[in-house]
Amino acid sequence: MASNLDGFFSALADPTRRAVVARLMTGPAPVSELHEPHDMALPSFLKHLGKLESAGMIRSEKIGRVRTVHIEAVAIAEAEEWLKQQRRIWERRLDRLSALAEHIEKESNNG
Amino acid sequence: MASNLDGFFSALADPTRRAVVARLMTGPAPVSELHEPHDMALPSFLKHLGKLESAGMIRSEKIGRVRTVHIEAVAIAEAEEWLKQQRRIWERRLDRLSALAEHIEKESNNG
Repeated sequence: MASNLDGFFSALADPTRRAVVARLMTGPAPVSELHEPHDMALPSFLKHLGKLESAGMIRSEKIGRVRTVHIEAVAIAEAEEWLKQQRRIWERRLDRLSALAEHIEKESNNG
Repeated sequence: MASNLDGFFSALADPTRRAVVARLMTGPAPVSELHEPHDMALPSFLKHLGKLESAGMIRSEKIGRVRTVHIEAVAIAEAEEWLKQQRRIWERRLDRLSALAEHIEKESNNG
């Protein structure tokens, strides 16, 4: 788990790679189409795809001369789940603080 | 926005830093208490805190000789929001695919 999240978050720490992820969420695409909107040499772009692939966020298959790239949506879900858990811990803390504030207010009104 | 997310995701790509974030979600803590569960020299641990602080995920204040660290929960929320948006795009795609499959099934039953 820990090592998966290392790779997921590291892969997402780059605007080009986030743009690729966002594009693939709408459906698979050939490498050439993914590369097109990015003002970047193909070898540099392929390195970004390599980083996403070794993190387990995308997979690709080659049919004839076309390599098609797919998202691994479960990786996105795992990263989101970790952040959601943290938010819940924080929200529970806010609930406790708010209950405490109410209690103090009541006590001071009674006193 | 893009550069914030770069820093957030990069900061989260490490198990020590994720553990610090998870701990701080329950409330502020002095540096010494944060360091205690980590089998790591203090200077190395302080580098991790520095990375979290420069990404805007934590802030710290020194009162007397004690430096207390606080979470910046809005950073966690921003990172989560980006992932949530991606999941929604993906879910809409699944909805379209499922509608298409239903349509094809109906057509083949009618044909």
